[in-house]
Amino acid sequence: MSKPQSVTAGLVVIGDEILSGRTQDANVAYLAKWLNEEGVILKEVRIVADNPAAIGEAVNTLRDRCDYCFTTGGIGPTHDDITVDAVAAALGVAVMYHDEALQMLRKYYGEEGLTEARKRMARVPEGGDLIKNPMSGAPGVSKGNVYMLAGIPGIMRGMLEGLRGVLAGAAPMQSGTVTVFSPESEMAERLEQIQSAHPEVSIGSYPFFRQGRIGAALLVRSIDAAEIPPVLAEIKEAAQAIGAECMDGEPQE
Amino acid sequence: MSKPQSVTAGLVVIGDEILSGRTQDANVAYLAKWLNEEGVILKEVRIVADNPAAIGEAVNTLRDRCDYCFTTGGIGPTHDDITVDAVAAALGVAVMYHDEALQMLRKYYGEEGLTEARKRMARVPEGGDLIKNPMSGAPGVSKGNVYMLAGIPGIMRGMLEGLRGVLAGAAPMQSGTVTVFSPESEMAERLEQIQSAHPEVSIGSYPFFRQGRIGAALLVRSIDAAEIPPVLAEIKEAAQAIGAECMDGEPQE
Repeated sequence: MSKPQSVTAGLVVIGDEILSGRTQDANVAYLAKWLNEEGVILKEVRIVADNPAAIGEAVNTLRDRCDYCFTTGGIGPTHDDITVDAVAAALGVAVMYHDEALQMLRKYYGEEGLTEARKRMARVPEGGDLIKNPMSGAPGVSKGNVYMLAGIPGIMRGMLEGLRGVLAGAAPMQSGTVTVFSPESEMAERLEQIQSAHPEVSIGSYPFFRQGRIGAALLVRSIDAAEIPPVLAEIKEAAQAIGAECMDGEPQE
Repeated sequence: MSKPQSVTAGLVVIGDEILSGRTQDANVAYLAKWLNEEGVILKEVRIVADNPAAIGEAVNTLRDRCDYCFTTGGIGPTHDDITVDAVAAALGVAVMYHDEALQMLRKYYGEEGLTEARKRMARVPEGGDLIKNPMSGAPGVSKGNVYMLAGIPGIMRGMLEGLRGVLAGAAPMQSGTVTVFSPESEMAERLEQIQSAHPEVSIGSYPFFRQGRIGAALLVRSIDAAEIPPVLAEIKEAAQAIGAECMDGEPQE
């Protein structure tokens, strides 16, 4: 059976506020899940400072290495919103006003309200397109395989709604989980054998200490859903062989 | 007045589970704040897959570029815990058992309970040291300027307690915040002027839409605390000039 090829994305999080610890990122996990629904695997994330050289280096590496490169943050109207300029410089193109974006801003703020600062929000790398935002109207910007999204989670999510079905994705990654209530070190040798016997899946062991119970969630991932249940069954057998309680699915929070 | 030189760190988050969206990272913000308390600036974060080549590339780049390189995740006993091996390969050294770590494990599990899988947790890159964990006993591993921490937040935090005062830090970054209740685009031009007039500080504008109110938190950062209040005062003046309400500090959640 031929497998669909994997389609990958990288993400550049532009955020002094995240590197300073001021803001807890909420976008990586959301984007990762959204990409998975679209059949795209998130391969690498880089969180960089609000610095054109740092942004440019990360964007150029990830747009080259992955099928798609996303950025979050830095597309607002203030002096520290430098994503469009940094990406344009990285791509070697000029920055221009996007006609439709200007019209949207003119409609929203009125002709007099359209200050130079607000016009900044209509700037795109030359030849770039808008990412329509069905939820708030505020668009993102795309140019080639680079997709520039807002950093505010609610607005970023709206922009992703506008991108549904746009990316060329493969089959989404499937997964199944068994939770074993024993220290993961007791299962480790057997798990290694199971992984070696099943190179077609990827087995992850995620230990937890929760409500006084020790255990590990054992996650089996594959693009082909049919490959998962036999491996889960082997893991359950291995758990029973050492007398450990186990259950289907994730441990409860 | 001479400024202390900045001391920097990079972080490599080793985590298929974060790239798949399964787990929400909770370590970046915590480590960022902890580093700041130690006078170290977090310069870049890379989240990479559980893959030796990806880990090695990120570690080699960030340990070269920053004064310190931290990793989180992948130091447990299972087959997918490959951080020590990947870092050793990146550094060009062998992997060995650490005597003291073996003793700790022997004490914890007993001679018979010390299986090959559990012995994995005593492996370090040749010449590496343990990071003592005053909270749980489970140690991290350091080698040169690379510090390998657990991925489970509670254990990572314990290891950081063991590292208090160990890094050579500069003065910690100071910051002050004014919240202005107006769309940030109304303040943008004036803010740019204030930033240009005060290159000694860094001004960040973090817009919010919360409980029906629109505004922006304006954060002024500097290693020298004395430089912050005059800039905050100028921002407040600028807000009052456009008739916008403002308050000291962050907007309330």
